[in-house]
Amino acid sequence: MSDYLNELKLPNRILLGPGPSNVHPRVLQAMLSPMLGHLDPDFWPVLDQVRDMLCLVLGTTHNWTLPLPATGTAGMEAAFCNVVEPGDRVVIVVNGFFGGRMVEIASRCGADVQRIDVPWGQPVLPEIVAQALSAQSQVKAVGVVHAETSTGVLSPLQEIAQVVHHHDALLIVDAVTSLGGVELCMDEWDIDICYGASQKCLGAPPGLAPISLGPRAVEVLTQRKSPVQSLYLDMATLEDYWSESRRYHHTAPILMLYAFREALRLIMEEGLRQRWQRHAQTAAGLRAGLQALELELFAAPGYRLDPLTTIVVPENIDAAQVQRQLYHEYNIEIGGGLGDLQGKIWRIGLMGDSCKASNVLLVLSALEHILARQGYAEAHGAGVAAAQQILAVS
Amino acid sequence: MSDYLNELKLPNRILLGPGPSNVHPRVLQAMLSPMLGHLDPDFWPVLDQVRDMLCLVLGTTHNWTLPLPATGTAGMEAAFCNVVEPGDRVVIVVNGFFGGRMVEIASRCGADVQRIDVPWGQPVLPEIVAQALSAQSQVKAVGVVHAETSTGVLSPLQEIAQVVHHHDALLIVDAVTSLGGVELCMDEWDIDICYGASQKCLGAPPGLAPISLGPRAVEVLTQRKSPVQSLYLDMATLEDYWSESRRYHHTAPILMLYAFREALRLIMEEGLRQRWQRHAQTAAGLRAGLQALELELFAAPGYRLDPLTTIVVPENIDAAQVQRQLYHEYNIEIGGGLGDLQGKIWRIGLMGDSCKASNVLLVLSALEHILARQGYAEAHGAGVAAAQQILAVS
Repeated sequence: MSDYLNELKLPNRILLGPGPSNVHPRVLQAMLSPMLGHLDPDFWPVLDQVRDMLCLVLGTTHNWTLPLPATGTAGMEAAFCNVVEPGDRVVIVVNGFFGGRMVEIASRCGADVQRIDVPWGQPVLPEIVAQALSAQSQVKAVGVVHAETSTGVLSPLQEIAQVVHHHDALLIVDAVTSLGGVELCMDEWDIDICYGASQKCLGAPPGLAPISLGPRAVEVLTQRKSPVQSLYLDMATLEDYWSESRRYHHTAPILMLYAFREALRLIMEEGLRQRWQRHAQTAAGLRAGLQALELELFAAPGYRLDPLTTIVVPENIDAAQVQRQLYHEYNIEIGGGLGDLQGKIWRIGLMGDSCKASNVLLVLSALEHILARQGYAEAHGAGVAAAQQILAVS
Repeated sequence: MSDYLNELKLPNRILLGPGPSNVHPRVLQAMLSPMLGHLDPDFWPVLDQVRDMLCLVLGTTHNWTLPLPATGTAGMEAAFCNVVEPGDRVVIVVNGFFGGRMVEIASRCGADVQRIDVPWGQPVLPEIVAQALSAQSQVKAVGVVHAETSTGVLSPLQEIAQVVHHHDALLIVDAVTSLGGVELCMDEWDIDICYGASQKCLGAPPGLAPISLGPRAVEVLTQRKSPVQSLYLDMATLEDYWSESRRYHHTAPILMLYAFREALRLIMEEGLRQRWQRHAQTAAGLRAGLQALELELFAAPGYRLDPLTTIVVPENIDAAQVQRQLYHEYNIEIGGGLGDLQGKIWRIGLMGDSCKASNVLLVLSALEHILARQGYAEAHGAGVAAAQQILAVS
């Protein structure tokens, strides 16, 4: 009870879980900038600059683009509650925990949800979406998770968007674990609503959920019959604050926006395509190392997500014990399985500032030694050697 | 467009508006502590300590007490959407902008809202609540704003709570501008739901909304027939993360929680009653100074809020111009009027770390000189002198 009397003493973790990722020192430094009020004209350029850079990262020129003052789950909630009215039919293809959460959230918006299940570890393919839409009439929206954080699977969005629009529905995309780390072009791919989170490949602290609505979504929103059930997440009222009218809606999380601006600046400096390439190459090094250790990857070949790699826990290995040892002996965080996958997979994230060759070598070396102690195989450095083959190129 | 290429260059404001307030350097420093994952066992003590201290600040021993990962408006939304089901009758007494927002939010939850209007600047009195409840049957909840941020009025909660419970309804209280700055004792006063915001008298950055549910509210929540319309703000699922089960609900805004913990520690060090007393005395100094300048206070006598003082803009004075001059010449932010009061009142906040004698003297001196230039009265330092009479005692 009296522990709060002490200063915080926390270990200096290397964050290789499903997020948050480590944050660049410049991002932390930005939070020490002078606090301004949310209606101070000197603060408004910060909003404009964040919006401009966020549009570039999302690949969109549309105005209704802003970071929600809340975390990624609020992004999902905003995506559905702004365009879905009670009774609207919504198709959600579920290939992991976050697809399941889409079903939950759309249902709480009063949607008539048609849930299509795909085995966890498999992608959402355009054929599955086409089949689902052919079996339904008057579908208002289709929800798809671009990068399933629970399974490490990437689904082919561009082809899915074509199918969805062929059936005159809106495409709602969860890009929480892809935005800033793998290719995603909202306008070119014709995505109607896309949301993400600040703390993964974007390299900012957790607390903001970027979201963007394309023209079809804005039209649906403006023609609603019932009000959006959440005032806090009502995009029209949020837009009133983010646009030139600067009408008060909420007290913006000022310091988080300073941090987010700096994280976006770092992306601009690196270049978006170079950043995707860095995530691809670093993940390739990790996968090569894991395969050299004869560890099985969980995600389907061809659909493996670069920012997050999933590994099947070998037989007779205590998954949680390995994670604890990584914490205590190496100060490394990796993720465990969510839902049915608890104890069955590990999740290694290489996102944002955490995505670098040195972290790959460290986690492979640590994992090899901890597994050896649990009797998996002797540690000879095979994982590190295989990873070096790929990473040395960079 | 290319402004984001530059580092942030922001003025060093003295924040005397309706929030955010200035933040103690230790609060900023805390945000530089090592980032941990939201499921890291080494992070959990932070959650426990925040909860323990928040309970002390709210004057409650009840468990369902936590800071929502969003701003104050989300606190209001959570308060209503967790206990109100479609069709439930809710009485809201509106004496300002935020009472009006309660009506809006409760309506979006599907409530049958009975709105009682009180002139802006006047308090919500127990008699008004009693009259409203006698005219209605089966009222599920009553919403009251403790400290109306739009008018600077404090309403007598304890007496209102008795009336509300006499009619078997729940009392929902907005304590956004009172929590940490004026007396508030959730258990002793028998408040069922109370929410606030991090960035005012609590002295943390904006981004979190503390909320607490008492036993009646928890019982109503657990006996609901329909799910809470927001998963993000569903207190039962949030509680699953904040309690020992530590079940994943959202990625906690780690750095904001470090900052909030440090702000709460500063309150513990100062003492809650001492802090209320500091806000009372500093505000008394400001009011004395304003009255010496013959400026009219907007809030009804006897119900004036210490953390936020409202002033009637004198005739022939351009309210916005005065605010701009305070920004540009003195680096001071004060607030203008919201809604119908735009251009008609100013709002001077003395909250958290911004609440100190030196700020009172500075803003009185600045205001006197700016008003003199607009022809209001010659500046002779009368405001500062009157304030000193009171502030010198401290």
